[in-house]
Amino acid sequence: MTSVSVIGIGQTPVGEQWDVSIRDLAARAIIAALKDAGIERPDALYVGNMLSGPLAAQEQLATLIADWSGLRGIEALKAEAACASGAAALRVGYMAVASGLHDVVVVCGVEKMTDLDGDEATIALMTAADADYEAIHGTTFISLNAMLMRRYMEEYKVPYEAFAGFPVNSHANAVHNPNAMFRQAIDRDTFLNARMIADPINLFDSAPISDGAAALVLCSTERARELHRHPVRIAASSIATDSVALHDRRDPLFLSAVYSSAMKAYQQAGIGPEDIDLFELHDAFSIISTLSLEASGFAARGQGTRLAVEGEIGLQGRIPIATMGGLKARGHPVGATGIYQAVEAVLQLRGEAGKNQVQGAHWAMTQNVGGVGGTAITHIFEG
Amino acid sequence: MTSVSVIGIGQTPVGEQWDVSIRDLAARAIIAALKDAGIERPDALYVGNMLSGPLAAQEQLATLIADWSGLRGIEALKAEAACASGAAALRVGYMAVASGLHDVVVVCGVEKMTDLDGDEATIALMTAADADYEAIHGTTFISLNAMLMRRYMEEYKVPYEAFAGFPVNSHANAVHNPNAMFRQAIDRDTFLNARMIADPINLFDSAPISDGAAALVLCSTERARELHRHPVRIAASSIATDSVALHDRRDPLFLSAVYSSAMKAYQQAGIGPEDIDLFELHDAFSIISTLSLEASGFAARGQGTRLAVEGEIGLQGRIPIATMGGLKARGHPVGATGIYQAVEAVLQLRGEAGKNQVQGAHWAMTQNVGGVGGTAITHIFEG
Repeated sequence: MTSVSVIGIGQTPVGEQWDVSIRDLAARAIIAALKDAGIERPDALYVGNMLSGPLAAQEQLATLIADWSGLRGIEALKAEAACASGAAALRVGYMAVASGLHDVVVVCGVEKMTDLDGDEATIALMTAADADYEAIHGTTFISLNAMLMRRYMEEYKVPYEAFAGFPVNSHANAVHNPNAMFRQAIDRDTFLNARMIADPINLFDSAPISDGAAALVLCSTERARELHRHPVRIAASSIATDSVALHDRRDPLFLSAVYSSAMKAYQQAGIGPEDIDLFELHDAFSIISTLSLEASGFAARGQGTRLAVEGEIGLQGRIPIATMGGLKARGHPVGATGIYQAVEAVLQLRGEAGKNQVQGAHWAMTQNVGGVGGTAITHIFEG
Repeated sequence: MTSVSVIGIGQTPVGEQWDVSIRDLAARAIIAALKDAGIERPDALYVGNMLSGPLAAQEQLATLIADWSGLRGIEALKAEAACASGAAALRVGYMAVASGLHDVVVVCGVEKMTDLDGDEATIALMTAADADYEAIHGTTFISLNAMLMRRYMEEYKVPYEAFAGFPVNSHANAVHNPNAMFRQAIDRDTFLNARMIADPINLFDSAPISDGAAALVLCSTERARELHRHPVRIAASSIATDSVALHDRRDPLFLSAVYSSAMKAYQQAGIGPEDIDLFELHDAFSIISTLSLEASGFAARGQGTRLAVEGEIGLQGRIPIATMGGLKARGHPVGATGIYQAVEAVLQLRGEAGKNQVQGAHWAMTQNVGGVGGTAITHIFEG
């Protein structure tokens, strides 16, 4: 199997981008990544996207974006795994190079969610849940996460305040990220006084609806050394799944897909959680950050919030997370998120993360979650 | 690179299946394919689907289907390339095994289109076209193909009657396919008297809106010989693209994505069109059959309909097409079609096509087209 490395990264600012179409947004990220890699024409493009059908009335999206990026003719397809669609596209690109079928490929994640009103996006996002057994009862994606958070608070006797550290950390890290959607720091009081969205999830527990695109150029590790001053190797790539519906799980407080994908990734990379220098996790909701830290081996069960309380998730902490603002403050254009995470991991490993640099970072892990833990995709980068 | 073979096939009948949900439909095909292969738990599932978002309010579809098929936990993702989504999933599965990352994977194509009224399906299908430059003008997918057919008739002075041979052939072949949607033979007069849908496309020029699912089990060619009495090798797999919008092409009567993907496939397999024993092409419309035969090297430009007129596309002809009824008469559940084509190619190469058997078939080609030729995915099977 061919070893695979990243030789180019590109991203657009995340936010409300009403003057840019979905194809423009994607093309900007792709062109930036190709320029960074010094590549004119890659062999293939794999696009991660969840909602272009309902929100832009556009499918066959990868072909459209290939053409709009000046790459008419190349292989193209779209990968979907709900909010983990970006990482799913990275997985496909990884396989394309690992197999030796292609030399150089681009993967792009893109989502455009703010053109319609918020209700439309909320309804569209609910397609990440089980339509026949969850959505039909009128739940929303936030209410499912709220039930999970409530259950956690009850089971482990964890107070609401214990979650404050997650958004405080994300917002602090976003201040120095020029592509972040919310570049204002918040404090514990901001969190405690925030209005409820779906009790106990408040405004600062949940990632925003956003537009954005990010892209990576991948090639063989052997060739990467010729093409880029600082290639970053993909040391592991893995996907695992669980039931989509929350009620189908024996233990809803254990994200088994996250656990399986993380363990497979550690095995592939030949390292353990203690070796990871930074972890771009899926902080769509503070409860998912908590459960992901636990299932990925960074905290014992019921102890995930302690990492936040004790400051261990900051840039100088034991396990820095959301180092460029995460889903919460950089923003969460769902199908793009998995690629933003990878772009940020590469920035850190190249030593190009500016004021957010995690000193001496060598191993970075990214984890993109679809639905309420139905799909988990973990990548480990070395550089 | 690991050579890849098919060791299991499964399919559901195509038609209006109102008593079956999309997850049930897919699970039936997957379980049948796993049984055929003698495999209990594959490593991964890749699902081809275009419209589960708008038509079933369901994304994260691959994860949902994995669980429903008794495969909770395995890697899963969905591939989308409009009407070529099925073959896109096959491409991903091919890469997963070719890379050596997985030993045994399942690919499944599924679409459920008849639950809502026909208008909803027509609107949803229009997302295969360019939303900003085609759909916005009120065109439908059929009207785009109608413009293409009209242009062909004008440019090459081909009469309407010349297309009759395509649906007559498809319907004749569907009679003996128990999974086909329309098992009635038609004659030339049926075609000539059919009502217009979008002039010059009549009812028998266009594939129906259908429900259905099909699945394949893939593994390395080396291991395939141990696992199945008659494995079928995937000799080539290739994707090429074009502009999505018809008006963006220099020559709309030349399907350049079809040409490129077919030529790459011939090269990979080390054969030419003269070696192909049967060709499951994308007969969503008779004009697409015509242009695909031309761009794939089976007819000179402007001569595609002559193959039908001269009976060369029948089971005993020079290049048998749509041997089990094709999109037109077996039916066209869009995201499933690419996998149905592969299942039928395998049946032919195993010598299990019953009354539709192409005698001595050794090489079979399948070609799945997204949009009006925006994406073309060609596979060549040897067995």
